Amino acid sequence: MEFPSKLIEEAVEQFSQFPGIGKKTALRLVLYLLKQEKDQTTRFTEALDNLRKNIRYCVECHNISDTEVCSICTSHRRERSLICVVEDIHDVLAIENTSQYNGLYHVLGGIISPMNGVGPDELNIQSLVDRIAGKGGEVQEIILALSATMEGDTTSFYITRKVSDKGVKVSTIARGIPFGGELEYTDEITLGRSILTRVNYDLPAS
Amino acid sequence: MEFPSKLIEEAVEQFSQFPGIGKKTALRLVLYLLKQEKDQTTRFTEALDNLRKNIRYCVECHNISDTEVCSICTSHRRERSLICVVEDIHDVLAIENTSQYNGLYHVLGGIISPMNGVGPDELNIQSLVDRIAGKGGEVQEIILALSATMEGDTTSFYITRKVSDKGVKVSTIARGIPFGGELEYTDEITLGRSILTRVNYDLPAS
Ligand SMILES: [Zn+2]
Ligand SMILES: [Zn+2]
Repeated sequence: MEFPSKLIEEAVEQFSQFPGIGKKTALRLVLYLLKQEKDQTTRFTEALDNLRKNIRYCVECHNISDTEVCSICTSHRRERSLICVVEDIHDVLAIENTSQYNGLYHVLGGIISPMNGVGPDELNIQSLVDRIAGKGGEVQEIILALSATMEGDTTSFYITRKVSDKGVKVSTIARGIPFGGELEYTDEITLGRSILTRVNYDLPAS
Repeated sequence: MEFPSKLIEEAVEQFSQFPGIGKKTALRLVLYLLKQEKDQTTRFTEALDNLRKNIRYCVECHNISDTEVCSICTSHRRERSLICVVEDIHDVLAIENTSQYNGLYHVLGGIISPMNGVGPDELNIQSLVDRIAGKGGEVQEIILALSATMEGDTTSFYITRKVSDKGVKVSTIARGIPFGGELEYTDEITLGRSILTRVNYDLPAS
């Protein structure tokens, strides 16, 4: 696509660097901006510049935070004996959305991936170990909530070994067929594992 | 969705103002930016600010341009007797992409739409009439390349009446475009052919 303006071309180029945004979508977004008041572009770019310059991460759990320690870590209504270990902030938001979890978090900032050159030292793993040790027994259980992939399994294995002498229980989120999911549309690996890790079926009390 | 940071919330809010970008996508884009170097955000916001501040429109055809008169209007390789009338710059880019058209353009900046309060005076219609009159017979044909909608038809009708005493032929792109279809979403081949097979635009008998 040839553009009648270098300014447009550069803006489209920049927009299409985002994952999932192709040249056509980028152009649509750029032309949308041009149709709005100038102020709207300014508000947009200021919000992003402001975010990028001032974003902080909680010194305890590494979740994104506007303060030194995040609102989850400082809350008195959260179960402090429980730490859910996740890959990134997406996962924190997804789990918070379920309203099923009331403990704390630990954000690794990624997953062990030799292929992508990400080793344990690039992740917030040592700080998790230190956090457990430093709390003098307050932390009783860590829940590994990582992706059900080879890399997720590797990371879970590594963390479990690292905390094995810390006297904490290590659990992992249940894997299986999604609720509402139909058996025939479930992939083989999930299905196979869900058979191997079957649980007792208890009749509901009547 | 509740965010752990006002900075994130504001950035997501701003991103989700774009058409077709919901809160979830906005969050994905924001978190992507956070994972990149700070410079990348700066380059992105600078490109947009630069675009919004310095964008200009060709004084001849109202196409987006970095110069007073655009590169199409100043080109000696374009057929100067032909003006293709389009709604906006999307359409110019789409038609240029077909490589089937070698004339000039006139960008109306919208379409007559009483429902949206857009009348002929809000559009670059008078400047089209002046342009034809001012060129002393150079312009021999205008091609109406507007969407095949009620509003497109209304606009074509209005323009045809306005130039009826200017001694120019008025044609309209062939209805290879599905009725109700918008020009910018038409595939290149259909669009290119519909320009080649354009037909005379005759005013409905009154
Ligand atoms: Zn925290
Ligand atoms: Zn021009």
